[in-house]
Amino acid sequence: MLKTMMANVKKTRPLVHNITNYVTVNDCANILLACGGSPIMADDAEEVEEITAVCGGLNINIGTLNRRTIEAMLLAGKKANELGHPVVLDPVGAGASRLRTETALSLVKNVKFAVIRGNMSEIKTLAYGSGTTKGVDADVADSVSEENLDDAVVFAKGVAKKLKTVIAITGAIDIVTDGEKAYCIRNGHPMMSAVTGTGCQLSALTAAYVTANPDTPLEAAAAAVTVMGLAGEIAYNRLGEADGNSSYRNYIIDAVFRMSPEQLAEGAKVEVR
Amino acid sequence: MLKTMMANVKKTRPLVHNITNYVTVNDCANILLACGGSPIMADDAEEVEEITAVCGGLNINIGTLNRRTIEAMLLAGKKANELGHPVVLDPVGAGASRLRTETALSLVKNVKFAVIRGNMSEIKTLAYGSGTTKGVDADVADSVSEENLDDAVVFAKGVAKKLKTVIAITGAIDIVTDGEKAYCIRNGHPMMSAVTGTGCQLSALTAAYVTANPDTPLEAAAAAVTVMGLAGEIAYNRLGEADGNSSYRNYIIDAVFRMSPEQLAEGAKVEVR
Amino acid sequence: MLKTMMANVKKTRPLVHNITNYVTVNDCANILLACGGSPIMADDAEEVEEITAVCGGLNINIGTLNRRTIEAMLLAGKKANELGHPVVLDPVGAGASRLRTETALSLVKNVKFAVIRGNMSEIKTLAYGSGTTKGVDADVADSVSEENLDDAVVFAKGVAKKLKTVIAITGAIDIVTDGEKAYCIRNGHPMMSAVTGTGCQLSALTAAYVTANPDTPLEAAAAAVTVMGLAGEIAYNRLGEADGNSSYRNYIIDAVFRMSPEQLAEGAKVEVR
Repeated sequence: MLKTMMANVKKTRPLVHNITNYVTVNDCANILLACGGSPIMADDAEEVEEITAVCGGLNINIGTLNRRTIEAMLLAGKKANELGHPVVLDPVGAGASRLRTETALSLVKNVKFAVIRGNMSEIKTLAYGSGTTKGVDADVADSVSEENLDDAVVFAKGVAKKLKTVIAITGAIDIVTDGEKAYCIRNGHPMMSAVTGTGCQLSALTAAYVTANPDTPLEAAAAAVTVMGLAGEIAYNRLGEADGNSSYRNYIIDAVFRMSPEQLAEGAKVEVR
Repeated sequence: MLKTMMANVKKTRPLVHNITNYVTVNDCANILLACGGSPIMADDAEEVEEITAVCGGLNINIGTLNRRTIEAMLLAGKKANELGHPVVLDPVGAGASRLRTETALSLVKNVKFAVIRGNMSEIKTLAYGSGTTKGVDADVADSVSEENLDDAVVFAKGVAKKLKTVIAITGAIDIVTDGEKAYCIRNGHPMMSAVTGTGCQLSALTAAYVTANPDTPLEAAAAAVTVMGLAGEIAYNRLGEADGNSSYRNYIIDAVFRMSPEQLAEGAKVEVR
Repeated sequence: MLKTMMANVKKTRPLVHNITNYVTVNDCANILLACGGSPIMADDAEEVEEITAVCGGLNINIGTLNRRTIEAMLLAGKKANELGHPVVLDPVGAGASRLRTETALSLVKNVKFAVIRGNMSEIKTLAYGSGTTKGVDADVADSVSEENLDDAVVFAKGVAKKLKTVIAITGAIDIVTDGEKAYCIRNGHPMMSAVTGTGCQLSALTAAYVTANPDTPLEAAAAAVTVMGLAGEIAYNRLGEADGNSSYRNYIIDAVFRMSPEQLAEGAKVEVR
């Protein structure tokens, strides 16, 4: 399954439109190229509908949002829906400010997402909505561990069902679910959190994967999450004694560039729950 | 010729004002430093005329344009013209949206450019203008190869004459022409297209080269294109088996940093047509 | 002293809100992670007060300012003051345009800064204010050397007293002073000026250091300046013969990531005047 997902990306070279933050945008572009896709960045309301129309998929990341780009996100998202292009949401910092929370909720309300990827705290914000908790049990710990994995899976499935999308909650253990089936992925390395934007990069990667595999968004998202985690492991093993988080950043993208479907299948630590 | 162009950059350390996209801006700044120049980034209408006045040249790149920065591009371009500073245009994505096409055409109409650098598709958009094809034969393939090189050179010369500027069309074979003389450059490596912004970086580099060589924009642009291509080759040869596009990005800029005029002259694959 | 400053950063992992330019923002985020801190970037007036409230400190950098972000800088700065969070200012390019000079002066007037870090020319612009020179002797050379160090220290102390803040003037020799005591720091390497944004990175680092050491901003800033300089030395020694400024950029951040309090104490070249 994972092998096919990756092979389809490498074969179809999906063109992904990104409306994303200016902090990690360069790494997002390079990881899209690394995986075999191709990036376009454009964030102005005057052009995003045309740009998204020439692409195969759309990645919306609210990392450094403002009114101008929020308008563009909504326009591009609706256009992508109209055209049947898969759309990924990365609700960066949802919960940290009213603007972020409201924008994330407004996007979820107005745009149909193929995948929403965030950390537990961001996904909980989406689940709770504007203060109400009904429909989803969001009383779950902020960091997923072996001890609370069952609860986290139940929570993730609930959010996926409520929002009718694939939910990818990433952390020490990643959970990817469509509400019925959940992939628990144990790839990755703690040092990835010392590199800015590994989450943003994963969302961009996920957009490439769902664009190349439009009929299997759950498996596509699970494959992207596994690729990123495995790249983190491969890159970690490559670190020399003088290397720190900046070289690690490069090595992670390099590992995505070099990874073969066979390597992915062999290195994957994926369990279905 | 190439040696002199590079020597002048290293000697005069040109200060280049960049109004450019937020995707590849950091690499543009670092490649300007690598070649011996110095970058300033400023994109607001309230200050761009003052900033461009303290610089020697201007690089305009429409990669992530919006109304605010378009206004700044026009103001800075006109000011640079007034002061006799060379200006480079990178019409990123012209043709992909009306906003990009119209902005590129408006810039070409209102600002005198020393060099316009883009891929064939972007340059064709400039040549066709708003749908009319008169004056320039734009019926040429989108990718330049040995087979269609003659036609591409004729096309490039036509655009250069029509727009009264040096045109640099980059791809598998690069063409740099002022309408009379065309340099065909066979440096570079296909893997460069797996690094985001090598085109943007080249435009920034070109701005440094024409700023340091204001009387010979054709030769300056040809030298910059050759430097970038040769850096791509040197960097490729440096790749280890775990290296991918992220390390390649660093190695390309490193190669520009390390390149001597002698190395450039020796490695150049430049033909005049 | 330096060891304690660093140990406090590693222990408390300060969360720093950055309103900074889009050129070097990724490196600022990665150096904050490298030193043991954590970055948040947010630049819109609608959310900066909330974002800064959840952080421990604030870093304001005017590198690519515009009206929208200037408003955010003022709002965030005032909010941080209200909450007692330390605020760092990097007045990038103050003096190069009226917008930059006026913005820097307006920030200094409306926000209480724990530390202002810039090069000599930027700090002189702040000292002169809008053309008046009274109160501070700004008749000092733009680059600090052994020959003019005494004058530079007198000048820096004067500015610190006038602006009631810690002033860090970085260059060949760095001066960090609160108006009474001045640390003269001789770490660093000339090649650091071939990497874009080492100054911006240092300001971000300084914000982490003053956030983790709120009662000793002078010592915290001196420690941050020393860390950056020492990282530049360690990274320089690591350069291979093919490495240029792009690899150097990575190695500097790597060195910050790897540096221990003991290594800092051992490598520091700090003199008190």
